Amino acid sequence: MNNQIPSNEVPVKAPFEPLLSLRWAEDKLLMLDQRLLPDEIVMLELFTAEQVFEGIRSMKVRGAPAIGISAAYGVVLGAWEYKGEDAVAWLKHVLKTAAYLAESRPTAVNLFWALDRMNKRAHELAEQEGTTESRNAGLLAEAVAIHEEDEEVCRLIGEHALPLFKDGMGVLTHCNAGGLATAKYGTALAPMYLAHEQGIQLKVYADETRPVLQGARLTAFELQQAGIDVTLLCDNMAGMVMSKGWIQAVIVGADRVAANGDVANKIGTYSVAVLAKAHNIPFYVACPLSTIDLSTATGAEIPIEERSAEEVTQGFGKRTAPEDIKVFNPAFDVTPNEYVTAIITEKGLVYPSYNENLAKLFQD
Amino acid sequence: MNNQIPSNEVPVKAPFEPLLSLRWAEDKLLMLDQRLLPDEIVMLELFTAEQVFEGIRSMKVRGAPAIGISAAYGVVLGAWEYKGEDAVAWLKHVLKTAAYLAESRPTAVNLFWALDRMNKRAHELAEQEGTTESRNAGLLAEAVAIHEEDEEVCRLIGEHALPLFKDGMGVLTHCNAGGLATAKYGTALAPMYLAHEQGIQLKVYADETRPVLQGARLTAFELQQAGIDVTLLCDNMAGMVMSKGWIQAVIVGADRVAANGDVANKIGTYSVAVLAKAHNIPFYVACPLSTIDLSTATGAEIPIEERSAEEVTQGFGKRTAPEDIKVFNPAFDVTPNEYVTAIITEKGLVYPSYNENLAKLFQD
Repeated sequence: MNNQIPSNEVPVKAPFEPLLSLRWAEDKLLMLDQRLLPDEIVMLELFTAEQVFEGIRSMKVRGAPAIGISAAYGVVLGAWEYKGEDAVAWLKHVLKTAAYLAESRPTAVNLFWALDRMNKRAHELAEQEGTTESRNAGLLAEAVAIHEEDEEVCRLIGEHALPLFKDGMGVLTHCNAGGLATAKYGTALAPMYLAHEQGIQLKVYADETRPVLQGARLTAFELQQAGIDVTLLCDNMAGMVMSKGWIQAVIVGADRVAANGDVANKIGTYSVAVLAKAHNIPFYVACPLSTIDLSTATGAEIPIEERSAEEVTQGFGKRTAPEDIKVFNPAFDVTPNEYVTAIITEKGLVYPSYNENLAKLFQD
Repeated sequence: MNNQIPSNEVPVKAPFEPLLSLRWAEDKLLMLDQRLLPDEIVMLELFTAEQVFEGIRSMKVRGAPAIGISAAYGVVLGAWEYKGEDAVAWLKHVLKTAAYLAESRPTAVNLFWALDRMNKRAHELAEQEGTTESRNAGLLAEAVAIHEEDEEVCRLIGEHALPLFKDGMGVLTHCNAGGLATAKYGTALAPMYLAHEQGIQLKVYADETRPVLQGARLTAFELQQAGIDVTLLCDNMAGMVMSKGWIQAVIVGADRVAANGDVANKIGTYSVAVLAKAHNIPFYVACPLSTIDLSTATGAEIPIEERSAEEVTQGFGKRTAPEDIKVFNPAFDVTPNEYVTAIITEKGLVYPSYNENLAKLFQD
């Protein structure tokens, strides 16, 4: 495929400074309130684990990797509330904070992955010589590492995915697995950013992604900001657009991938996968290893969060459905592995059989 | 199937007076502004063909049969503007009014069907002995007949469809092919109203139907008003709900059915049809004969209206997508005949092969 620039040309990096969803600022976590995008760009200052919990729960921050990073910083902020010098009491306090943060949302596994990693580090720090101050510094270093590694991981995902795309291709994505969902670059959108840097023109179609409209508000916004050709669709238009032959690949992110390759992702992903299969379009899932949960055997074991009716009935600033109407509002669905052409990770592309090939990723 | 009430019980008609989308009131057409539902119930008074044109174009009235009825009354209101007594000039004026109204929307064939019928009646009236007043009265009688026949046709569609449904079934519908889309009862919703009258419990799932949310604002509203069990979904949840085994039938309306059974209907219908097939769920299209256009050979010949980007980007009081974002906003899509289990008409159910069996409907 002709998706590499000629070797005698130097790739010109687009002069683009992306909006970051999270920044650590000495004594606080700065969190972009993604619910207000694209209308308003508001960075919230969070000083407590409770504020981080609320930021995750209310979807001010969303996207599996960004949720994980936020939770890691939340543990740090929570740790600061312990004022004594007893290592065991400090550890107990940290673990309690992490357990509390784990309740903020149920589906994205990166949340639990990041909290496990913080807990493990807390155990190590509690066993080492040190003060509360040094232990807290150690925790912060771990959160920063999680944050920085995510950016590198996303870039690697983009690089591994790049050979799948060639100039002029139509690519459909659902929800936002972009820079705003991660430290930077995103997962599903990383290859689009890297293609753009290399001068490869993709034609991106973004499902608006009801009810919270992450596709309209975030994906369309960040790709437009980056100068990438993006067309916004209502979710129910994806089938028609596929039938017109405009789409050559679908790429989405994930909130949790089970050991067998079943994928929990934003509600509507399953419909897109079924439609892609009916139109013989490859369906790719891009995610870091931290989204793959070998302890979840199949998608049937993944808890699916149901959210409030109001997200559906009055999400646009005014009520758009009758009062007291019954609403089914699952935040996620599960796409069975047979719909997934490949899973794109920082270690490369994984093809079926997923049980075998996903396990291999963790064996090094 | 146990969808008849026991013969020793008298069916209790639910004490329900449905909201009507159209009423003729002596010298004007009363048109419910469906864009304001369910928040506000506003009946507009229309005195001119131009007002009717605008009502159709801006979707104050929508639904293929209701558009046809509106256009018929629009011809009457237009005819009144002719103040002379010359039958030929009167006819010319009427035909011009009809041609004008035909430009209001391109996809729903009932519009053209109703205008053709009015034109045919105008030709007859112009050839008969009479005055402008008697000719105008003749035109009005024709519009009223179109209106009244539609109610009867919808009831017949519901009766023919009823044997497909049984107590406890889950039925999914898309957009609004209900009483508000027709004179009364609706097409896709008629069997639900008749089932309800007979005490048959259906569990209806209504896609909200972006961008204009006819499912949320109209279908959920009118079924809720009638006391029917209805659950609202975002369009992208239909696949998940089907995969859960909650849906035993899909039933939708149509804006135009081609001679080969291809169906143009509200955008998203095609996606629902593909999803239904993937889950082995029967997919029914309910429509009157006036929606079937034998002069359109296949769906490829049906013009698909594209509407403004603003319907998607700021449909409900606030902007939910970035400024200047590219949007694809087709109002309809075409579902190929192979996805259609049967077409339910006032003359009964039509099964494939549609070329043959649809033609037969018009041979009596």
